[in-house]
Amino acid sequence: MEITDALLRAQEAAAPEVGRGRLAEYIPSLAGVDPHQFGMAIASCDGEVHVIGDADVRFSVQSISKVFTLAMVVAAEGEKIWERVSREPSGNPFNSFLQLDQEAGRPRNPFINAGALVVTDRLHALTGDASGALRDLMRRESGRADVDSDPEVARSELEAGHRTLAVAHLLASYGNLEGSVEQVIDQYVAQCALSMTCRELALAGLFLARDGVLADGSQLLTARQAKRVNAVMLTCGTYDSAGEFAYRVGLPAKSGVGGGILAVIPDRGVACVWSPALGPSGSSAAGLAALDAFTTFSDWTVF
Amino acid sequence: MEITDALLRAQEAAAPEVGRGRLAEYIPSLAGVDPHQFGMAIASCDGEVHVIGDADVRFSVQSISKVFTLAMVVAAEGEKIWERVSREPSGNPFNSFLQLDQEAGRPRNPFINAGALVVTDRLHALTGDASGALRDLMRRESGRADVDSDPEVARSELEAGHRTLAVAHLLASYGNLEGSVEQVIDQYVAQCALSMTCRELALAGLFLARDGVLADGSQLLTARQAKRVNAVMLTCGTYDSAGEFAYRVGLPAKSGVGGGILAVIPDRGVACVWSPALGPSGSSAAGLAALDAFTTFSDWTVF
Amino acid sequence: MEITDALLRAQEAAAPEVGRGRLAEYIPSLAGVDPHQFGMAIASCDGEVHVIGDADVRFSVQSISKVFTLAMVVAAEGEKIWERVSREPSGNPFNSFLQLDQEAGRPRNPFINAGALVVTDRLHALTGDASGALRDLMRRESGRADVDSDPEVARSELEAGHRTLAVAHLLASYGNLEGSVEQVIDQYVAQCALSMTCRELALAGLFLARDGVLADGSQLLTARQAKRVNAVMLTCGTYDSAGEFAYRVGLPAKSGVGGGILAVIPDRGVACVWSPALGPSGSSAAGLAALDAFTTFSDWTVF
Amino acid sequence: MEITDALLRAQEAAAPEVGRGRLAEYIPSLAGVDPHQFGMAIASCDGEVHVIGDADVRFSVQSISKVFTLAMVVAAEGEKIWERVSREPSGNPFNSFLQLDQEAGRPRNPFINAGALVVTDRLHALTGDASGALRDLMRRESGRADVDSDPEVARSELEAGHRTLAVAHLLASYGNLEGSVEQVIDQYVAQCALSMTCRELALAGLFLARDGVLADGSQLLTARQAKRVNAVMLTCGTYDSAGEFAYRVGLPAKSGVGGGILAVIPDRGVACVWSPALGPSGSSAAGLAALDAFTTFSDWTVF
Repeated sequence: MEITDALLRAQEAAAPEVGRGRLAEYIPSLAGVDPHQFGMAIASCDGEVHVIGDADVRFSVQSISKVFTLAMVVAAEGEKIWERVSREPSGNPFNSFLQLDQEAGRPRNPFINAGALVVTDRLHALTGDASGALRDLMRRESGRADVDSDPEVARSELEAGHRTLAVAHLLASYGNLEGSVEQVIDQYVAQCALSMTCRELALAGLFLARDGVLADGSQLLTARQAKRVNAVMLTCGTYDSAGEFAYRVGLPAKSGVGGGILAVIPDRGVACVWSPALGPSGSSAAGLAALDAFTTFSDWTVF
Repeated sequence: MEITDALLRAQEAAAPEVGRGRLAEYIPSLAGVDPHQFGMAIASCDGEVHVIGDADVRFSVQSISKVFTLAMVVAAEGEKIWERVSREPSGNPFNSFLQLDQEAGRPRNPFINAGALVVTDRLHALTGDASGALRDLMRRESGRADVDSDPEVARSELEAGHRTLAVAHLLASYGNLEGSVEQVIDQYVAQCALSMTCRELALAGLFLARDGVLADGSQLLTARQAKRVNAVMLTCGTYDSAGEFAYRVGLPAKSGVGGGILAVIPDRGVACVWSPALGPSGSSAAGLAALDAFTTFSDWTVF
Repeated sequence: MEITDALLRAQEAAAPEVGRGRLAEYIPSLAGVDPHQFGMAIASCDGEVHVIGDADVRFSVQSISKVFTLAMVVAAEGEKIWERVSREPSGNPFNSFLQLDQEAGRPRNPFINAGALVVTDRLHALTGDASGALRDLMRRESGRADVDSDPEVARSELEAGHRTLAVAHLLASYGNLEGSVEQVIDQYVAQCALSMTCRELALAGLFLARDGVLADGSQLLTARQAKRVNAVMLTCGTYDSAGEFAYRVGLPAKSGVGGGILAVIPDRGVACVWSPALGPSGSSAAGLAALDAFTTFSDWTVF
Repeated sequence: MEITDALLRAQEAAAPEVGRGRLAEYIPSLAGVDPHQFGMAIASCDGEVHVIGDADVRFSVQSISKVFTLAMVVAAEGEKIWERVSREPSGNPFNSFLQLDQEAGRPRNPFINAGALVVTDRLHALTGDASGALRDLMRRESGRADVDSDPEVARSELEAGHRTLAVAHLLASYGNLEGSVEQVIDQYVAQCALSMTCRELALAGLFLARDGVLADGSQLLTARQAKRVNAVMLTCGTYDSAGEFAYRVGLPAKSGVGGGILAVIPDRGVACVWSPALGPSGSSAAGLAALDAFTTFSDWTVF
């Protein structure tokens, strides 16, 4: 089936789910978003982009940013980050503190909050400005110079961020932060507050489907590194429902509480879907339905 | 690179690991196996088989059997088994009893012991002879009528099986067994004690790479079902190192404590590698190295 | 206040709780008991007994038996049992399997099921007949030769006992059972199924308030040993509400799911209260209220 | 045996343990204390004080302060604090974050760090100056107007306090703090940094043995409240070895990482022992041995 047709089918499949579920209520400025929006963009490896719905409305990328900071750290120094972070699924949300404590401050994977804090901390040490470096990558790859953090969202998260602060202090107690807690939290919040569209995110992530090659033809990651980031996304990218997600969608993917999901189809392209209402697993319910249908109707799958 | 060359490279990469590690000492009859053996077989979707080393020596398939019993239950009644078993990675070996208890007797996934017991229990209820049905499938697909369980291994496991009995009784206490504890344990032990070669296992698993199509052209699973079994293998197939395995090998795979690993490359074929000594994660250390090298040198990967 | 007056006050305080709560439904033959019964007996160190209500009705002692088997093992070989069992509160019911697994098969304390199984296993190894030895002690101390196990309750427990079997097999997997799983379960079930009255239990436990001295003046435990058994009862005797129980009642005590509670007031005497309906903590709600009132109105407390 | 003789026996029993173990190395200024010191004081209910060794050397009271802040909050508003803190033993150090998370931010008991932070937070809300109110109580009861916090220790703890900050932020994320994280941490650190002698602490704690009556004859706690604070000390006062401590010493007690232990013998008096080196359980090894011997040789026990 043609991509445009598969996109239509995906939109149809998602329709009953759009607006159903809850918003990320712990971040006040996200709780005010209209939950009835839905957008999807497919960027092919050849650079073509297909969109449907609200694919040009900006939303808060939140945890989707974690894929990009991880890629930048791996690009800068290869496997070193794995001395500080594991790459196993976490299994259970309530285990997060238990595991971090039992495993002496080494987070389970780079996509749970604890691991993302360590990655951001490392990126900040490497670049002197983690969120700036991320923003610049996003601007270059999406071709949009006005991609930026939403200061309102960032402020809103800082105020509600006691849980993230607890994690950061626990990391610090085990000596797994290079910078101060305040610094890493500031960088982390700025990175999560990036505001982008489905189209922009799909373009920005395209290097993961192209063996690490950026829009300008330069190599951010080696082919092997790109494959490995995809593998970590597949096993750990969707919180505690990575198994469920792999079962239904079968693609490396990363979701965010802003309602976006980025999915990589190696050697084919990147899909980005967005609809703000979250299902019980904490990922966009409509987004999950859309990706499920898209992989069923296109032949874009990995399994 | 040609498959035969990639096989050679895999054997070379594995060589330093062969014989290093521990045998599955809790099963006395496995503890006596010569740890210096290594074999590998690649079965292509077109039916061609390439082998290297001890690929025609039989070994105890152990947990690799769990992929086949799951496939048979899904073939028989589709999604129903997921009412009794989840499909999320378990996260931590020490969590196994905790999770089973907190999640009211519903195992985390069909590949941890608790989940495999439930799958075997269901297969037995459906067929009246779970281990017989499995043996017959293995014989048909491998083309070898003498494939069978090793009674010595089965007896040995029964005697050492207090932990498995504990899990089965906990399942029974939550009403998640149809048969008796004794019955499900007997069937489970018989299935794990199947003795097969790399060549036979690779052929037997080929339907997973061929969208569910068996050797005789009939359909055991639909294409969608086959993809989904592969997805569960990727996220949950290698105990608590599924993330690590996906990162290094990037293929749906299932390992067993007999030292075998079965890996699926959708639309390409199936790899089976065997070397008895187990690494810290409980999978064959040499097998992991061989698969890592094979996917690097061939272009057989999913990411 | 006189003991008889304090007993009346205790009965009054318990009245609103009598019959409220649930019965131990997982043991069919206990689920049929009339929940509106209430009895209490106080045995003083000088041998005097005061009773009120249904203090001469027999009920299933269940876990109260664990205090007596522990005392007999300590009497036989002193501190040795602590090599196989710890003496710390367990903290959380869901932790039971997790802790047993993480602590390599050494139960948290002798009053959780796992610990009691180990104590019974040891008593059986020491005496050749654990439940017989316990029954004989109960008969001698209560002065009633017809004290015995209720075979109906024992059978009922055996049938419902998958959870206990799971614990016993996990103990066996760590080598922390001397006898077979079947043997220890048989003994354990027989000991829990003992049927006794409040009066009989209070007399049987009197040695714990008398520095270890039995009814015939012989010494079962040294004074130091008796103190220590009392200490373990106070910190671990009432499941996961030991803290709550110590707070409200302030006495070493052991409860059972049959609705009985045995409490020791060192150098004063022993109280036994019974009312079948269990509160949320798994101990008799009316029994707890009665003991709370009794310690408030008498001067029989330890703090 | 006379108290002075029992003190001598306690000192003898402790001698082999003095200086053995580790200091509280995570607080730099405590790590510099001479570990070979040992002191003990017994204050009788009639006001008499007996001392031995370094009983007049000041040390950091640390967690012993938690008994006093709890008593002051109970004095001010009775049972209300239990809506925010439970009174059950925690079972396992690694469970602390897990339990706090699973129990929605309600700490297990007032003596683990999480619970003590909530108590201090409440005391600060009630008094406007928690650490000042505590210091004043300590001065009045010990009769020494120069009792004060050691600013060096307080600063030292603040710097090393990432773990405590993590706990405080987790409490705040569940809405279980009235003041800010910074405020409660400041107060908590100041209270732990109080510097007192064994003699001073024994006198300060005497109200717990005297049914709540202070040195000036006024009532801080009712008799019932005093009993209950003692009960919570016995079940939860010595970290994760409350069971072990009750077994060996059999008294309500609270230990601190400064090496002090305060023990209450209701209606008799209060013992305070100090020796800086900590055993594996985190309480003073020599202090534990001294109390064990003292209770054995005096008749001051509760069981």
